[in-house]
Amino acid sequence: MSKIWVVGIGPGAYELMTVKAAEVLKNCDVIIGYTVYVDLVKEHFAGKEFLTTPMKKEVDRCVMAFEEAKKGKKVAMICSGDAGVYGMAGLMYEVGVNYPEVELEIVSGVTAATGGASVLGAPLIHDFCLISLSDLLTPWEKIEARLLHASEADFVICLYNPSSKKRHDYLQKACDLMLRYKSGDTVCGLVSQIGREGEQGRILTLRELRDTQTDMFTTVFVGNSQTRNLNGKMVTPRGYRNV
Amino acid sequence: MSKIWVVGIGPGAYELMTVKAAEVLKNCDVIIGYTVYVDLVKEHFAGKEFLTTPMKKEVDRCVMAFEEAKKGKKVAMICSGDAGVYGMAGLMYEVGVNYPEVELEIVSGVTAATGGASVLGAPLIHDFCLISLSDLLTPWEKIEARLLHASEADFVICLYNPSSKKRHDYLQKACDLMLRYKSGDTVCGLVSQIGREGEQGRILTLRELRDTQTDMFTTVFVGNSQTRNLNGKMVTPRGYRNV
Repeated sequence: MSKIWVVGIGPGAYELMTVKAAEVLKNCDVIIGYTVYVDLVKEHFAGKEFLTTPMKKEVDRCVMAFEEAKKGKKVAMICSGDAGVYGMAGLMYEVGVNYPEVELEIVSGVTAATGGASVLGAPLIHDFCLISLSDLLTPWEKIEARLLHASEADFVICLYNPSSKKRHDYLQKACDLMLRYKSGDTVCGLVSQIGREGEQGRILTLRELRDTQTDMFTTVFVGNSQTRNLNGKMVTPRGYRNV
Repeated sequence: MSKIWVVGIGPGAYELMTVKAAEVLKNCDVIIGYTVYVDLVKEHFAGKEFLTTPMKKEVDRCVMAFEEAKKGKKVAMICSGDAGVYGMAGLMYEVGVNYPEVELEIVSGVTAATGGASVLGAPLIHDFCLISLSDLLTPWEKIEARLLHASEADFVICLYNPSSKKRHDYLQKACDLMLRYKSGDTVCGLVSQIGREGEQGRILTLRELRDTQTDMFTTVFVGNSQTRNLNGKMVTPRGYRNV
């Protein structure tokens, strides 16, 4: 049976992928992915066949992977972070309905939430939510409801895709929603270029975050009511008692 | 300056730790952790000094790590999954306030949510929450509020610590709360022993989950309104439009 490994390569640095991900990429014939991610791994896996499709061509990319597998090649489809968190794993199963002869294996990776958390300190120690601010496939009202409910329930919130050229004011809108339930003094963090050259972390308050411009390479962390700035690290305690 | 690496070893299998985690454990002098996790890595890092403390002795374990580091040893404090998700990273920063001469570095790992998701298919493709059902350090009312808000906002929900001997009916209580907003037909999943011997995944409905007994080695996944059972895999689509 043909097989495709859907591999999360982690935030970017080779050493942040799992031992298994590195082994799969070493043993496969062809590595398929979004151009930027293929460029991240290329130098470590010389001699492989590399195939890319640009952004927004995700379905084409999946079909390409299945067609290569049908030829008998060992195919690795790569995603940044974890393939199962806003990644290609779901679409691969959906497209895979048309390719019952091809088996899929998902190889987990470190997603931006946990990779970024390590840079800031320990913001995700207690219950948290991941919310993407991209409204490309999700109605904004749904995103808004999630921001409000997550804030009211005092979750730590990690925001993916906080802004882009077209959505330059989305993070500000999101902060205004969270500020209905979270204090302006809530400890927040920003991490950009996680695990890549130029990695940078910054701790600030929710009030300051509201007026900060980010980009699509930034992951945003908003603390819960217990999160503290501990000597420059963003730290959420394990609970609400005895701490 | 002395340094401690706080290392997430992933779900359990050696190959699911990051390349960096494996390197840190290879190069350190002493590996400290909860007995069960130390046993998981012992065979792969022969010749190291291993120190353990039992469950609920987390503060002692942190102090032990800092004291060993002060002796000039290279110390790795290990946690299962990611050290920053219900792990030791936060407590290490808190205890570390008393050891300003010791530097901390957090090394990310694959947490049970993403490791378990890979076993079930792709349940976490869209916005999701992690909620621990352990009320050891968190008032149950807080957990209840989070379950209700997360359900009302149609998050995928991943439950850690779904039950234990003392809390045998907590998962049932949690399901009853989620059923106020989520359909009984919601696609759910259970994964036990992720990345270890006996790993097992199961897909079922929220109605069935309510009457299922789990243990502390199980991670529970509750889909959103779009999550489907696709040929035996739990798959959440990327969004609500064009899918």
